[in-house]
Amino acid sequence: MRLSLGFILRPFPRIKPPSCPPLQRRYTDMASTVNKVAHPFDKTRFDATLNRRFFYAPAFEIYGGVAGLYDYGPPGSALQANIIDQWRKHFIIEEGMLELDTTIMTPSSVFETSGHVARFADWMVKDTKTGDVLRADHLVKNVLEARLAGDREARGLAAAPPSDDKKKKKKGAKAVAVKLAGEVVKEYDTILAQLDNYDGPALGELCRKYDIRNPDTDNEVGEPQQFNLMFQSSIGPTGQHKGYLRPETAQGHFLNFNRLLEYNNGRVPFASAQIGRSFRNEISPRAGLLRVREFTMAEIEHYVDPEDKSHPRFKEVKDISIVLLDRDVQEAGSSQTRSLTIGEAVDKGVIANETLGYFVARIYLFLINIGINPQRLRFRQHMANEMAHYATDCWDAEIQNATGWTETGTPLVVRQALKEPIITEKEVPEWNKKVLGKNFKKDAAVIQQIVDSLDEPSLLKLKGELAQGSTIVKSEDGREFTLTSEVVAIERKVFKQSIREFTPNVIEPSFGLGRILYTLLEHSFWSREQDVERGVLSLPPVVAPTKVLIVPLSAREEFDPLVQEISSKLRKAGVFSRVDDSNTSIGKRYARNDELGTPFGLTIDFASIQNRTVTLRERDTTDQRIGSIDEVIATVTDLVFGAIDWDEACQRLPAYDGVQAVAE
Amino acid sequence: MRLSLGFILRPFPRIKPPSCPPLQRRYTDMASTVNKVAHPFDKTRFDATLNRRFFYAPAFEIYGGVAGLYDYGPPGSALQANIIDQWRKHFIIEEGMLELDTTIMTPSSVFETSGHVARFADWMVKDTKTGDVLRADHLVKNVLEARLAGDREARGLAAAPPSDDKKKKKKGAKAVAVKLAGEVVKEYDTILAQLDNYDGPALGELCRKYDIRNPDTDNEVGEPQQFNLMFQSSIGPTGQHKGYLRPETAQGHFLNFNRLLEYNNGRVPFASAQIGRSFRNEISPRAGLLRVREFTMAEIEHYVDPEDKSHPRFKEVKDISIVLLDRDVQEAGSSQTRSLTIGEAVDKGVIANETLGYFVARIYLFLINIGINPQRLRFRQHMANEMAHYATDCWDAEIQNATGWTETGTPLVVRQALKEPIITEKEVPEWNKKVLGKNFKKDAAVIQQIVDSLDEPSLLKLKGELAQGSTIVKSEDGREFTLTSEVVAIERKVFKQSIREFTPNVIEPSFGLGRILYTLLEHSFWSREQDVERGVLSLPPVVAPTKVLIVPLSAREEFDPLVQEISSKLRKAGVFSRVDDSNTSIGKRYARNDELGTPFGLTIDFASIQNRTVTLRERDTTDQRIGSIDEVIATVTDLVFGAIDWDEACQRLPAYDGVQAVAE
Repeated sequence: MRLSLGFILRPFPRIKPPSCPPLQRRYTDMASTVNKVAHPFDKTRFDATLNRRFFYAPAFEIYGGVAGLYDYGPPGSALQANIIDQWRKHFIIEEGMLELDTTIMTPSSVFETSGHVARFADWMVKDTKTGDVLRADHLVKNVLEARLAGDREARGLAAAPPSDDKKKKKKGAKAVAVKLAGEVVKEYDTILAQLDNYDGPALGELCRKYDIRNPDTDNEVGEPQQFNLMFQSSIGPTGQHKGYLRPETAQGHFLNFNRLLEYNNGRVPFASAQIGRSFRNEISPRAGLLRVREFTMAEIEHYVDPEDKSHPRFKEVKDISIVLLDRDVQEAGSSQTRSLTIGEAVDKGVIANETLGYFVARIYLFLINIGINPQRLRFRQHMANEMAHYATDCWDAEIQNATGWTETGTPLVVRQALKEPIITEKEVPEWNKKVLGKNFKKDAAVIQQIVDSLDEPSLLKLKGELAQGSTIVKSEDGREFTLTSEVVAIERKVFKQSIREFTPNVIEPSFGLGRILYTLLEHSFWSREQDVERGVLSLPPVVAPTKVLIVPLSAREEFDPLVQEISSKLRKAGVFSRVDDSNTSIGKRYARNDELGTPFGLTIDFASIQNRTVTLRERDTTDQRIGSIDEVIATVTDLVFGAIDWDEACQRLPAYDGVQAVAE
Repeated sequence: MRLSLGFILRPFPRIKPPSCPPLQRRYTDMASTVNKVAHPFDKTRFDATLNRRFFYAPAFEIYGGVAGLYDYGPPGSALQANIIDQWRKHFIIEEGMLELDTTIMTPSSVFETSGHVARFADWMVKDTKTGDVLRADHLVKNVLEARLAGDREARGLAAAPPSDDKKKKKKGAKAVAVKLAGEVVKEYDTILAQLDNYDGPALGELCRKYDIRNPDTDNEVGEPQQFNLMFQSSIGPTGQHKGYLRPETAQGHFLNFNRLLEYNNGRVPFASAQIGRSFRNEISPRAGLLRVREFTMAEIEHYVDPEDKSHPRFKEVKDISIVLLDRDVQEAGSSQTRSLTIGEAVDKGVIANETLGYFVARIYLFLINIGINPQRLRFRQHMANEMAHYATDCWDAEIQNATGWTETGTPLVVRQALKEPIITEKEVPEWNKKVLGKNFKKDAAVIQQIVDSLDEPSLLKLKGELAQGSTIVKSEDGREFTLTSEVVAIERKVFKQSIREFTPNVIEPSFGLGRILYTLLEHSFWSREQDVERGVLSLPPVVAPTKVLIVPLSAREEFDPLVQEISSKLRKAGVFSRVDDSNTSIGKRYARNDELGTPFGLTIDFASIQNRTVTLRERDTTDQRIGSIDEVIATVTDLVFGAIDWDEACQRLPAYDGVQAVAE
């Protein structure tokens, strides 16, 4: 935290809504009669489904693609927009946060001051022969994990994967059935448990000690070097102003702190929030949406008095139970988690204070609400060397997916307060106010403002001109003023940014929306017991891209008036629907929409024309009910907004036992 | 349009909602008893208000600022989010468009193919002595306009502005009272009317012919040179992959065209839509939000059969009357507009076809709906040389503001269809399928896929290795396959992208949200007749950052339960409210929120505690009504969602004549 503030501490602001909303019943629990684990999760089928339905796809495919860049198609965009909408309601509106929208392009001086130019980097190694670039920690991890897998195979603890089964194996290092000494296995396990704790030289030492080579070529790798992850560019036509694309939105919050504080009537604590794109030039991104070079993130900066980290709404969340993996456990080489209530965790000092605990709980509630499986969610504390250069404490919300426990891009960082004065040197104008006033009278203020707002190069130019006699400055309205060194001198000064009366701590919950979206899709994906080929995405209605699919028996004109009536009534009720009248069976159209995660379907058939009835289909159970158009619309609206669940809907509408062509 | 397609033309897709929503009554018409034009629009006061209330501010102010970059504060962010929300409803949902979210970082090959690397540029000139860079067309405009102003002054047609009144004068060229010959005035007027039609050499000629110099130095300027407006960067750790930040989102649509077409079941016409950030490295941006280097835009690409540009919903909009300024009129040196209905404009051929007319009307309805003044809105057609390199026709929605008629960043472009075949040369693998199958059996497909997906440099490397005997390729799961030239040869081939059966035309409505936001603010700003200092922003409730302000008489605890009850009830009704219990008079708190555009206020006083009544205040009239808490909440909810207007609210609630401290 590089803020220099001099404001007064006031009581907690009054913008507080009455209470946290109750934890919504998870939609995926609704249809509990369905066996969703009949088939093990199949990553290949899952990826193929997402690609076929255009949730997302590698960007620039027709140009050969660029690693780490993805485009979201219609269902992915809608899902992302719905997650953002929930995020905005859960955090910004519910907690009365101050929203910002700041620029991505940032002059280099900002990131020089923040330490990013010097330290926002990963360690990379080069293949000594081919020059291929690898991320050092990923290399060590891949090679050691492959050796451990080979060891288990040699001991008969794991079956060798069939050599042509490419689905089951990961890229990179190959497992070869070689037995390792017991203590070597132990060493490897310990290294892997605290891998994030190694810096570059230590990673280099590991490569030498354990003969870790580029698995693609079997060549040795060189000494780890730092690679800065910020994309660089140049602002303006002269090419002299270096800029970076922001790697996080945080600087945009901090630079506006004084304005935000004023907007909040001078009171702390308060929080700013921002949803926007950030960029990291990853060394060799290979993990789909889990590691990308461009991503939408949502960040909160909650400013709190370091002397008082209590939170007025802590009692509302203290009984929520969460799974924690703290720093001490990991530094002892273990990954043993424990389950605690938020209240217990703060009492025991596992979580440092109430405010931090409150945010852990709120993040947990948000993730569950959009459909993340709570059984596969834990909070892991960063180890000392693992944290970003600006952090003093950090908790990651980690979610289990097919590749193990992965950070979801929701780190909860405590940024460090200013500990030592920052010393900077710069050119500043020194005014002779008397002469200035005498010479320029009422224009004095204008002139002073012009010169005071000049940047360093312009001030240096001015300094040169003053040294040679005089200089001319121009006002916005084009008037010219001649200045001499009698009026103003440009001098180089040293500034010490001393510690002020009060520097707030900052708690920074940060959400990588792509990772959350991907994991949510993975948690939602399953196949029908009777048919492994039929993928289903059990997205909760609150985030599903389309809420209701309208399916006329055919594209014949006689169904048009009913299709239009139902679309219109749903739109008025605020329910987003789509019509599918493509020339294929109703069963196939529903199957397509099961893969798109559409929770409800309305079928319009000849009975609809005769009796004004429609059938309502639920995605997970494929159960169908029947009722009048208005009854069904009222029921599906209540379902979409979570007012009732499917069991309640079934009490309202009788089962459909029709014989028309609704074969699944 | 650089698409190569081979799909079949089908009927218009069925995703059609029943009808356009009726044009909403403009909120600003509601309180028509208020004299909003008592004071002329004061740009200085307006800018000061926006800055003080943190709608937006120059980015990186504490680092001296960077021209053309702005941060949005809480009210600006909320206003922008509300405009985007309306846009999404008006276009994406209402028209069933396919939403996309594609990457900003783009490999250079994409913009080489699209023509942007060669042609997406502005003409700049350099001051021959100082090297200062100026945009050539802006220089010509500023200097000629200043000379015309000086001429009017010399003829006594305009008063000389007082020399110290910096508010009234623009930056740059200064008007000096010099009379011009009559024919010179005419020449200048003609040049200015078609300035957008001049290219670089022609602008250079103007500078020489009319002795146009840098007004800041009076030095001559050099020959105009092109400056590419795209920000450049480099992707990945090797520094070898050049990338650009997109200057528009269009390429992201086109590159995904085939996937979108498939998603739409192969049917055209259809539209894709995207809201996102784009970047243009402007030469010297000086016009606030009207010309920035980074901006949020919303773009639509509507794909239509060039043989059939009818639109099934055209009849719904054909009677809407709009003001047009067409190409022919401008090329004759005039700016004479005419008012036509959309139907007449298409009949007369002023607007080329129904689909284009439909979009002009829909853009008009959108802008009016969010609060743009229809009296200050016109559609101007681009002249031939003015259009972007990819356009064949273009209409700008122009809005009048304090600086005149300005394009609002909502051009409606018709992109050109592919006219000539594109010829490209590249390395391609040529397989001997027989040998491949015989040697590798079921792995043949895997191998072929690996090689086919290699990029040009990798293919060249492979070519070299094959020439020397053999090469090894690796599958994703790490298996190795040895290939010889018997199996595959890498050959350089020429590809001719021939014209397919059908290449769609593309209509591209594009919205620069910052410009719309700025103009909306300007159209909404006025001062109370009795007090010029009190700015009011009459934003319609649909886009206002905060809908309801809750104002307890003081921050005393006794008001807390009512504040919480009302906040909670409003939140349940979906109405975004804020509490202001700061330590200042109710009148001052309302004045602050008038500047923030908050349309309604609820005052909680001692009567509220005794009788459960609250007063409801309307921003524009400052009229106050009184009712029970639930009555007032129901009324304000109907007001916010546009179900009733203020006159109707007044019929429900009696006027407030209380004497408590509600002094304005």
